[in-house]
Amino acid sequence: MDSTRREVLAAVLAAGMAPAAQAAPVKFVRFRKAATTAYGVLEGETIREIRGGILGPYKETGARHKLAEVKLLYPCEPSKVLAVALNYKSHLGAQKPPAKPEFFWKPVTCLANPGDPIVIPPDAANVHYEGELVIVIGKQAKNIPPERAAEVIFGATCGNDVSERDWQKNDQQWWRAKGADTFGPLGPVIVKGIDYGKLELQTRLNGQVVQKESTADLLFDCHAIVSFASRFVTLMPGDVIYTGTPGTTRPMKPGDVVEVELSGIGVLRNTVTG
Amino acid sequence: MDSTRREVLAAVLAAGMAPAAQAAPVKFVRFRKAATTAYGVLEGETIREIRGGILGPYKETGARHKLAEVKLLYPCEPSKVLAVALNYKSHLGAQKPPAKPEFFWKPVTCLANPGDPIVIPPDAANVHYEGELVIVIGKQAKNIPPERAAEVIFGATCGNDVSERDWQKNDQQWWRAKGADTFGPLGPVIVKGIDYGKLELQTRLNGQVVQKESTADLLFDCHAIVSFASRFVTLMPGDVIYTGTPGTTRPMKPGDVVEVELSGIGVLRNTVTG
Repeated sequence: MDSTRREVLAAVLAAGMAPAAQAAPVKFVRFRKAATTAYGVLEGETIREIRGGILGPYKETGARHKLAEVKLLYPCEPSKVLAVALNYKSHLGAQKPPAKPEFFWKPVTCLANPGDPIVIPPDAANVHYEGELVIVIGKQAKNIPPERAAEVIFGATCGNDVSERDWQKNDQQWWRAKGADTFGPLGPVIVKGIDYGKLELQTRLNGQVVQKESTADLLFDCHAIVSFASRFVTLMPGDVIYTGTPGTTRPMKPGDVVEVELSGIGVLRNTVTG
Repeated sequence: MDSTRREVLAAVLAAGMAPAAQAAPVKFVRFRKAATTAYGVLEGETIREIRGGILGPYKETGARHKLAEVKLLYPCEPSKVLAVALNYKSHLGAQKPPAKPEFFWKPVTCLANPGDPIVIPPDAANVHYEGELVIVIGKQAKNIPPERAAEVIFGATCGNDVSERDWQKNDQQWWRAKGADTFGPLGPVIVKGIDYGKLELQTRLNGQVVQKESTADLLFDCHAIVSFASRFVTLMPGDVIYTGTPGTTRPMKPGDVVEVELSGIGVLRNTVTG
């Protein structure tokens, strides 16, 4: 077996997919190294740099970087960030399951890089993690039926929909409860070609597993989400949708380390600061 | 009096300011003409084209266009759109005045050009106008005290915070009630150097005045709004804030013409389609 085949097989196995099922998943990252900010394809510990963006046809520059030598950034640059509330039965508590996907907006300024701090804002007393599957839109999309939604989804990544529960309860809307600076950790990789409907989602707080569920348990799956949102709102290439969080959550405090892991995608790790 | 002085004086008088108080207000537009999309300075019926953006130091290209020969676009390209709820006593009804500014997000895809249609979305039955003063951020801003907020406000324009009242009442959050495509008409001009704290705001539906109030009646004025938002969220150059709507509103139907006018700024006119 030559090295290329070996790499492909390794990527396939890492993503937990049968090689015969479809093309091997591809992992994309965005990174900074010295004065360069670029996208790249990640294979093992090596990034193959890309010229321009990842959503259309792209070319590699020929440059290679070791993963350890770059700063990974949130892996795309959305023009908007949608998120879904109440989308796992295990998260509903006493609330009734919603009859339709219930969305809210997060501002683009809340996005945080892998490894960057989640900063507890002034007056915040009750900041929780929310580990989530995030889907990345690949094509401009309006009025997409569920059965065609897969065509406009580029790939999937990990997200942490950080939430201040007191503000969420007491403010008129969730603008800062879900939108304060650093409340949207995202990344580190976007995986294209993965079955995002059957991933194991796990959140760890200081190493302890605090959320664990399959994305198969989403009340509205990724295709239903994209379809419903696109009836009202034009989705643009690079836009991201946080798909909802399972189970229960707890407050975080300065010094805590929170990790969101999705099988076949990777681990999004951030530290909390005051 | 030469023609330049006459124009300056006319602009000053139009904006209702004493010439001695400060430099004359300047009107900026964004427009499309054939294959060109550009910013410009509007004087009377003439646009002086600008190279690049308006938020930093800019140069004129030398090209001039007649206002009648261009398509006016929403006048800046924000990375995010904030809006304030419950910000005039006349709009509160039985609700208590809020103790702090109450914000929500609108997505950038809801922005609509002057003259473009407001499209009633599928299943929408109760789409209302909301005439508003909109402020445009000129500089990156975090933790700005109210007394320094004027430094980060570039200028002011007209906005229509179109709202589907049934969704606003029944959805978990206002994501589509305030964020459906075309629900954010904006423009046509940004005026820099105007006293946005004392403008007459008037909304007309098919020529009939349906909202009329001074921006001096804002419960939280522009400086309080910018200051509070910037405690939690980094405001970026070009971001816009819809500051709230006065009085009561009514549903619109296809064929209706809605106009939002601010003294010294201009008229934002849109037609409703089904």
